[in-house]
Amino acid sequence: MVGNVIVGQSGGPTSVINSSLAGVFKTAKERGAEKIYGMRFGIQGLMDEKYIDLSDSITSDLDVELLKRTPSAFLGSCRYKLPEIHEGKETYEKIFSILKKLDIKHFIYIGGNDSMDTIRKLSDYSIITGQKINFMGVPKTIDNDLLLTDHTPGFGSAAKYIGTATKEVIQDSLGLSYKRDIVIIMEVMGRNAGWLTGATALAKGEDCAGPDLIYLPEIPFEIDAFLEHLREILKRKMNVVVAVSEGLKLQDGTYVCELADAEKRVDAFGHKQLTGTAAYLASVVSAEVGCKTRSIELSSLQRSASHIASRVDIDEAFAVGGSAVSASFEGDTGKMVVLKRVSDRPYQCTTDICDVHRISNVEKLVPRSWITEDGTGITAEFIQYVRPLIQSELPPIMVDGIPRHLFLAENL
Amino acid sequence: MVGNVIVGQSGGPTSVINSSLAGVFKTAKERGAEKIYGMRFGIQGLMDEKYIDLSDSITSDLDVELLKRTPSAFLGSCRYKLPEIHEGKETYEKIFSILKKLDIKHFIYIGGNDSMDTIRKLSDYSIITGQKINFMGVPKTIDNDLLLTDHTPGFGSAAKYIGTATKEVIQDSLGLSYKRDIVIIMEVMGRNAGWLTGATALAKGEDCAGPDLIYLPEIPFEIDAFLEHLREILKRKMNVVVAVSEGLKLQDGTYVCELADAEKRVDAFGHKQLTGTAAYLASVVSAEVGCKTRSIELSSLQRSASHIASRVDIDEAFAVGGSAVSASFEGDTGKMVVLKRVSDRPYQCTTDICDVHRISNVEKLVPRSWITEDGTGITAEFIQYVRPLIQSELPPIMVDGIPRHLFLAENL
Repeated sequence: MVGNVIVGQSGGPTSVINSSLAGVFKTAKERGAEKIYGMRFGIQGLMDEKYIDLSDSITSDLDVELLKRTPSAFLGSCRYKLPEIHEGKETYEKIFSILKKLDIKHFIYIGGNDSMDTIRKLSDYSIITGQKINFMGVPKTIDNDLLLTDHTPGFGSAAKYIGTATKEVIQDSLGLSYKRDIVIIMEVMGRNAGWLTGATALAKGEDCAGPDLIYLPEIPFEIDAFLEHLREILKRKMNVVVAVSEGLKLQDGTYVCELADAEKRVDAFGHKQLTGTAAYLASVVSAEVGCKTRSIELSSLQRSASHIASRVDIDEAFAVGGSAVSASFEGDTGKMVVLKRVSDRPYQCTTDICDVHRISNVEKLVPRSWITEDGTGITAEFIQYVRPLIQSELPPIMVDGIPRHLFLAENL
Repeated sequence: MVGNVIVGQSGGPTSVINSSLAGVFKTAKERGAEKIYGMRFGIQGLMDEKYIDLSDSITSDLDVELLKRTPSAFLGSCRYKLPEIHEGKETYEKIFSILKKLDIKHFIYIGGNDSMDTIRKLSDYSIITGQKINFMGVPKTIDNDLLLTDHTPGFGSAAKYIGTATKEVIQDSLGLSYKRDIVIIMEVMGRNAGWLTGATALAKGEDCAGPDLIYLPEIPFEIDAFLEHLREILKRKMNVVVAVSEGLKLQDGTYVCELADAEKRVDAFGHKQLTGTAAYLASVVSAEVGCKTRSIELSSLQRSASHIASRVDIDEAFAVGGSAVSASFEGDTGKMVVLKRVSDRPYQCTTDICDVHRISNVEKLVPRSWITEDGTGITAEFIQYVRPLIQSELPPIMVDGIPRHLFLAENL
């Protein structure tokens, strides 16, 4: 079923979400799609009839290569939750009237759990109302918290950046720690799942000791135990690097960052916007242990550092985009493409598809057995799982010393 | 005058201070130095007789290549101010007795203004007391605030990272700014000199608008004027990226970060330790303008991100290290190697030496004429000066997906 294609991006940016977009575009073109539209700002922009003809923006194979290396959502993203079908018929009618006007046969949405919720609802509505549009989901999230897929595109590049930055921070601290203790606390993204925080351990190697303590949000955080561990380590070394998840919580459920009276904000999906865990803990260490401290938030750098993206990740992101188009062209709808690890040595991974109804809002957490007994680090199994995902690079195309990206003229 | 060489590193780390160390080591070896020692933690460690034989750590040409790509001070650094000669004779006697014991003829010190103060005093003491040891300084600082040299090794790599990170942050913001304004405030290092903050403008190109507002510490900061500029920009775009120096001060000399009651700490040279300018301004914007804000501190990442170092910078850092050895071997003492820009198109740069007594504690600031009239940006002259310094890369040697560094076994 060839016809017009529309693709959108949703949720938080990653370094490789545009590689998935490139995979959708290139595959749709190769398979004879007449028009390939891009939603500006996901489903929310589409409802305002904001879309572009992607062929105007991606005009050559060089553009495809640039797009693969461009971080963040090229088309713009949104965080918009569709109403339940029975509660928001007008919303669905509006969306489908726009899709009909554009003669869309294939709707591809690149995003996380929340975006798959959008695919499920649209696909269901399409079937219920007997319309011939296929809806396919393409996973992405740096958080790696989606079930059913071995890992998520976006995670490998974030992990590679985090491992690299952690190693550089450790080197930095080693140069400075003469005759004075220094404790550096690095804050890493990941609200409930510790995949990214655990990735700081990738810094460890023959040439680097790695972080001294790693605290994942899966384990309730105890400030006293943390200080005790820290004091033990300070007996034998002067520079300590601690990695913490932004989402660390005490046993009673209080976020550590809330202890500092941080402003509490909530996004459209009810998620708390978190900041300040590392800054708060640094102030505690400073007061209780009395040593010099520094807090470092990797912030949005960790999800947009395409200049050190993982090639495996870029390639897989491209592949899942392409697979979504193929599946849709072959008649699938209401499905998400997933990554299936076929082998570890050597690493081999293929794509598969799964029913989007099987996706729940349950987040895939780091298994307890991949976290050390005392909850201050990760195990070899964790590294064995992550290591293949950060392999190789696809270096940026440099112009005048700075990475070149593909851009939309309206953003200038 | 061949003999033993000792080299030390001092002050804040950079991405390429080890390339200078590599330049010292390789040149000294090629010129027939018998022993090449490295001070652990600069002059402060040397006084505790902490030093290593560098030939034990750098055992091959591959090690030299790794060292060029290893961030932070491989030997460890210090911030130690020597007393005036007439006030601290014992200190000098101690240092020179250690140098004598090691049969040192050449003392090379890699550092900033404060380290050149060390070279001046040691060289003066050596001459006054009739000892035959040459003392040479090698400039380094990400801050680019040294007079007499066209620029400082370390600045180019920091500028390249800052330009790249700024561009990625702008891309990130563009993906998120549908139907809600977002103001991102990036805090960049540079206490009094705005070279690094100005480097955020390197993000600007055919594919990127660059930061919307750039505030250098050279110009007194006015919060009301800043908010007015911001409101103007928010009338025509929804995502605004502002770059601020950590050292922004009000007209009356108050640091902006002090307004947030930030803890005030002072280092050994009397410098205030600053943090929190961006975080404070983000809270002001949030309260006064009412939009979503995010603050990003580039923190120590900007001085240690050797994974995206400038090749020009690495090569020049190597060259100034080598030139210091050559000059010392030819009998120079009490001198610092400087970089001399010979031509802009094409960029050509050579080394020269200058008397270390000519170096004052005056910091080289960004010229007023390179800052826009209204104080919210930098001019084309600024970019023309910086652009050649960020050219090309010397990619890391990647092992298992992460940059490999040269390491000291005692750090593991």
